[in-house]
Amino acid sequence: MRQSQLFSKTLKEAPKDEKSINAQLLIRGGFIHKEMAGVYTFLPLGNRVLKKIENIIREEMNKIGGQEILMPVLQPKYLWEKTDRWSKGIGKVMYKTLDISGKELALGPTHEEILTNIVSKYIKSYTDLPLYVYQIQTKFRKEPRARSGLLRCREFGMKDLYSFHSSKKDFKNYYKLVKKSYFKILKRCGLQAIFTEASGAGFTKEYTHEFQVLAKGGEDTIIYCPKAHFSQNKEIAQLKKGDRCPICKKTLQEGKSIEVGNIFPLGTKYSQDLNAYFIDKDGKRKLIIMGCYGLGTTRLMAAIVEVYHDEKGIIWPQALAPFQIHLIQINPVGSRSGRQENTKKIKRAAEKLYQDLQKNNLEVLYDDRADKTPGEKFADADLIGISYRAVVSERTLKKNCVEIKKRSEKKIKLIKLANIKRINFF
Amino acid sequence: MRQSQLFSKTLKEAPKDEKSINAQLLIRGGFIHKEMAGVYTFLPLGNRVLKKIENIIREEMNKIGGQEILMPVLQPKYLWEKTDRWSKGIGKVMYKTLDISGKELALGPTHEEILTNIVSKYIKSYTDLPLYVYQIQTKFRKEPRARSGLLRCREFGMKDLYSFHSSKKDFKNYYKLVKKSYFKILKRCGLQAIFTEASGAGFTKEYTHEFQVLAKGGEDTIIYCPKAHFSQNKEIAQLKKGDRCPICKKTLQEGKSIEVGNIFPLGTKYSQDLNAYFIDKDGKRKLIIMGCYGLGTTRLMAAIVEVYHDEKGIIWPQALAPFQIHLIQINPVGSRSGRQENTKKIKRAAEKLYQDLQKNNLEVLYDDRADKTPGEKFADADLIGISYRAVVSERTLKKNCVEIKKRSEKKIKLIKLANIKRINFF
Repeated sequence: MRQSQLFSKTLKEAPKDEKSINAQLLIRGGFIHKEMAGVYTFLPLGNRVLKKIENIIREEMNKIGGQEILMPVLQPKYLWEKTDRWSKGIGKVMYKTLDISGKELALGPTHEEILTNIVSKYIKSYTDLPLYVYQIQTKFRKEPRARSGLLRCREFGMKDLYSFHSSKKDFKNYYKLVKKSYFKILKRCGLQAIFTEASGAGFTKEYTHEFQVLAKGGEDTIIYCPKAHFSQNKEIAQLKKGDRCPICKKTLQEGKSIEVGNIFPLGTKYSQDLNAYFIDKDGKRKLIIMGCYGLGTTRLMAAIVEVYHDEKGIIWPQALAPFQIHLIQINPVGSRSGRQENTKKIKRAAEKLYQDLQKNNLEVLYDDRADKTPGEKFADADLIGISYRAVVSERTLKKNCVEIKKRSEKKIKLIKLANIKRINFF
Repeated sequence: MRQSQLFSKTLKEAPKDEKSINAQLLIRGGFIHKEMAGVYTFLPLGNRVLKKIENIIREEMNKIGGQEILMPVLQPKYLWEKTDRWSKGIGKVMYKTLDISGKELALGPTHEEILTNIVSKYIKSYTDLPLYVYQIQTKFRKEPRARSGLLRCREFGMKDLYSFHSSKKDFKNYYKLVKKSYFKILKRCGLQAIFTEASGAGFTKEYTHEFQVLAKGGEDTIIYCPKAHFSQNKEIAQLKKGDRCPICKKTLQEGKSIEVGNIFPLGTKYSQDLNAYFIDKDGKRKLIIMGCYGLGTTRLMAAIVEVYHDEKGIIWPQALAPFQIHLIQINPVGSRSGRQENTKKIKRAAEKLYQDLQKNNLEVLYDDRADKTPGEKFADADLIGISYRAVVSERTLKKNCVEIKKRSEKKIKLIKLANIKRINFF
């Protein structure tokens, strides 16, 4: 895409009330626009990153048997009353609205009620189990503090997977499989997470598990083993910084972190409340055993920015960058003779490269703007943070070359224009 | 995907309050689940169809320069007050909720306010125009009558494109381009639409335009030329059934129809209210000229079912079917000798075919259910309506064949198993 036509522009400053790194850089880079506290629009660059995150998650969910569905935002009150969550627990942060008839509705903060109700109608026998269902959808929560950019939104994107089982053993096996899948997703997103024990939040007496990513901008605190053998959310931690890891005896550390995902054993709480039974092999009617597994898509975007940035801007992992290459055309400055001829020549070379790279199936953001100085273009490229920058200028063309630089490295490489198609960027 | 593992099951009957063909067939086929009037969950089959519709639209929007973004559901009241729509016009059917601070918020029924506000910050000069921005997103409207299944939902999917121009001429050219693009999208979805004049709805003194698809289940009525030279929504029609077409003089007809899309000249209504100006070539500050272009994604799904069905079920156009082939394994019935051996043989052949078709990059729904009769399997296949049915049975295997039938035709073809990979289904 031509940068001259890109909807968003980079900004010198983020809104003053945005203190978090992720919001500052994503707003300044033109990825998101703030509508109000905790509510953002995803501009073309941000939407591209979000879709890449979603597709990685979708691929991995499908690999572990997940069936994708789409549940509604609007949810009837009677289902929430059945689970006693209309006013309690998550019901306290639930947005509510009135139907045309005056009936109260919830704006889904989560979907256990809706889905378990559907499952109770379709699942009859042990032969219908196990079942794995997920969606990638928008959720709503009245967060009291919405001050960390995309880390804590009132409207946010989430992948929520729910699993349904005929036995606890089967549930536990799938729980392990999802754990592996989550590490794979996070790795593909460039993140290394620490599997952390957290509170059961009223669902279970056992621990639930969080995927925590160490980051200064995080809202959580974890007590963790440097080899990741052990980690507990500080809220429930029995050990403290300086204690020994129960597994490897290394000294435990304490750090700020971001919860990017969580997995919950739900037991039979919802199947009981919503009448989700199955007939087992032995002919007996039993409650379905459930698990749920969340992964914040918009929060992941924030976590990546919190981890991958420097003073100049974002440094996207390759798989998530809004484009794969940022091609920059540098126009000659000053009023030297032959300037106009040179400008034409550079433009011609850059345009050809733009076409060639695209023919090579690469996603290119092409900075073709005529009214920007080289300094402005480089600053924008560093702020936007695409993994590879390719510069075409008078200097590089003298050597029939394009100058390639990785956003994460200082090194600059000159590559012959004739060879560009054969370069394996990834 | 194996049908034995599919989340949804077909149902003998739809809920009694669902009178529309689309809701009856989509619910019975296991595409959607009704949560309440006008609010549905998209089950795996329905979600697959919806994603295919969205992708066709996305491809065509990108071709005409559309930049995809994602705007929020939650919208602040002050923007709606600026356009005087908080309580008037569409504001009357707007769901509202309270923020944590007690401030009123809207659940977006449309996004002119949000987007024009963003545009007013990014667009400064005529060189930033034209600009085409779209999203595929969920919208909310308090529909008084939500009785036509996915045709009229309270929560529904929509693609909304907005265009921004420096001149009326430029707008008009793009309007024509979008019109072409919409016909292309609808054609890819198997629909033939009639371009219909409709009321300006307060935006403009000129007509706006609707894309109407003739269908008995439609909620609209149009007066139209059989050659599609002329069509007006009956609400504003100056001519009536039996009159002559002003273009070709054919006799005008009247018919029930479904509005699947609309395109609106917005003029400067929103740019004025929300301060969206640009500096033109002549140095003068001018209001941006806007157009908006809607296409209901979930309504399109309904329209397709209303048009393409018979007494047995849905007949999906190939591009939208949830899977490309419905492979059916028929187990031998009765207690003839060799039955068990035969069952194994059929299963082996069907499993191999399932793998081979998938290796051939075809999306296969494989009816591997052991507890269903051939009659039940055929009835389900007709209800679900995948374009091609492939049957493997004792009879077909005797000839080393698979039996292929198009859902839309009666003709049955036997194809050698060895040749199946070379068959071009599409």
